[in-house]
Amino acid sequence: MLQGHQTWVFNSMPVIRASAAVGGPFEAEGALHDDFDRLNADIWMGQDSFEKAEKKLLEQACDLAIQQAAMKKADVQFFIGGDLMDQIISSSFAARTLGVPYLGIYGACSSSMEGLALASLLIESGFAQNVLTATSSHNGAAEKQYRYPTEYGSQKPPTAQWTVTGAGAAILGREGTGPHVVAATIGKVVDMGLSDPLNMGGAMAPAAVDTIEAHFRDLQRSPSYYDLIVTGDLGRVGHGIATDLLTQHGIKFSANQFNDCGLMIYQKEQPVFAGGSGCACSATVTYGHLLKRMKKGELHRILVVATGALLSPLSYQQKESIPGVAHAVAIEM
Amino acid sequence: MLQGHQTWVFNSMPVIRASAAVGGPFEAEGALHDDFDRLNADIWMGQDSFEKAEKKLLEQACDLAIQQAAMKKADVQFFIGGDLMDQIISSSFAARTLGVPYLGIYGACSSSMEGLALASLLIESGFAQNVLTATSSHNGAAEKQYRYPTEYGSQKPPTAQWTVTGAGAAILGREGTGPHVVAATIGKVVDMGLSDPLNMGGAMAPAAVDTIEAHFRDLQRSPSYYDLIVTGDLGRVGHGIATDLLTQHGIKFSANQFNDCGLMIYQKEQPVFAGGSGCACSATVTYGHLLKRMKKGELHRILVVATGALLSPLSYQQKESIPGVAHAVAIEM
Repeated sequence: MLQGHQTWVFNSMPVIRASAAVGGPFEAEGALHDDFDRLNADIWMGQDSFEKAEKKLLEQACDLAIQQAAMKKADVQFFIGGDLMDQIISSSFAARTLGVPYLGIYGACSSSMEGLALASLLIESGFAQNVLTATSSHNGAAEKQYRYPTEYGSQKPPTAQWTVTGAGAAILGREGTGPHVVAATIGKVVDMGLSDPLNMGGAMAPAAVDTIEAHFRDLQRSPSYYDLIVTGDLGRVGHGIATDLLTQHGIKFSANQFNDCGLMIYQKEQPVFAGGSGCACSATVTYGHLLKRMKKGELHRILVVATGALLSPLSYQQKESIPGVAHAVAIEM
Repeated sequence: MLQGHQTWVFNSMPVIRASAAVGGPFEAEGALHDDFDRLNADIWMGQDSFEKAEKKLLEQACDLAIQQAAMKKADVQFFIGGDLMDQIISSSFAARTLGVPYLGIYGACSSSMEGLALASLLIESGFAQNVLTATSSHNGAAEKQYRYPTEYGSQKPPTAQWTVTGAGAAILGREGTGPHVVAATIGKVVDMGLSDPLNMGGAMAPAAVDTIEAHFRDLQRSPSYYDLIVTGDLGRVGHGIATDLLTQHGIKFSANQFNDCGLMIYQKEQPVFAGGSGCACSATVTYGHLLKRMKKGELHRILVVATGALLSPLSYQQKESIPGVAHAVAIEM
């Protein structure tokens, strides 16, 4: 490994043996509803709080992935999970239910690909034959924690994004069939001084650009290597900024080659402002929609660049700007 | 790797090339004050909030470790960090300052050894020549977030613990001299139904026991292999419970062989209730005191079992019990 390189190339080609995407009622009306493994009609998931509902979503995604891999919970060697809730309670309480060795992570909405990168690292190292990684978000829980409870009815600017209610899970293995994780680029924290928590796509865009450039530099690749490069949840504003910055830096894409999970998941008519966001945004689009397209032969090589805004409500109140990070994972069929 | 094993054995023997422990004024009065690399007289660290002070402590520990390794910031290939603050802002903002590829983790007070285990995994995989891992906690910031602001003067029961103000950092490398990380056991979440956030040692003790037993089982070792086995921050109550449970399960220790960082860091006269706690408790005791004792030849083989209580203030309000986790790292000179 060369000094300065931030990309891991997995020679063992970890296999995504199974994956699952679950969503709520709003995702059921979205553009990708056919690619979810389960869509729940009740945003409360039968629970008495949004936080407990999020945990249920995460458990549902994990259970479905385990089933699809024809495994039992006890067969899972390690669980790597993270989410947006304070102290990542969704993941930790789901880990309690799973009862397997657990590594908690936090990268805000980049947690999906941080988890997939670390799960692949564990397979590569030979320390595990299978690893479960998953993440979740819930619109009601995220609004309450980061902004205002939905019930307050506060207005939002057009730069705001809509937190996806759902969860995505994947089981990585050494053996088996399915798409392979071939490389992961771990991002640096980039902060251009933006401080508006209702424009997180703008704050995260420079981090996505930094990671995409690092990925191409480390592997001496150009965008043409990939059928599709997707950012996690930059939304319309952030994705426009990222496209402009990459173009300025000489990185160009063909038509429809560069997209954003937050722009794909909902219908144009849905009132989601600049697009979808949340840990479940890139997780459900990747583990549901994109992997299904790969298995159908529509996509062969993709790069998923999950983006995270590393603020907290308190750091915002203390007048800090919003640090962004992005982790990229290359998947090939 | 056998199915069911949760222990990673590092054949590359990652070296702890450098480490640093920093503390605040209360730690300067503690039992281990000689083993801190820096003790700050100002608990505010010149900042206008406890949260910003915690970030400064973390940055200070990272800077000192980098200096001791005769490196520059830019030489650090990856930074793995986590802390107790919502959205681990201490680590993420310190990562912004460092400007190197960053993996955020969360395991409450087990974050110290989760970070050391993952840093060792990265070295073992060959994807990095050096990795920085660090964690922090701040008494004022933790009290405010988890319980009541110190200024309220609320009373505490004798089972409560005192969050350490400080930070610990280590630089792992493939080459160099120093203690080696030889194995890591990743813990399961264990929850025995305790729900008192002012008795976290009691809630975490069963997780510590589970991980210690898994470590001995996976490696077919007995306690006699180690000169010292320390838990992270069980305190007097939790350490007593852990000792009892282990004894019941047939695991016995010689005199002074089994201790707890939370019982070592302060003087008996200091008003810390059942003992020290916080991410910085096991981090400063390990990266300061214990590694110095290893370098002096007083200890050859140690097992550090960092314990984490995976609750949030909200999960407590929603009547959830406290899940515990513990990650163990074996270090040899």
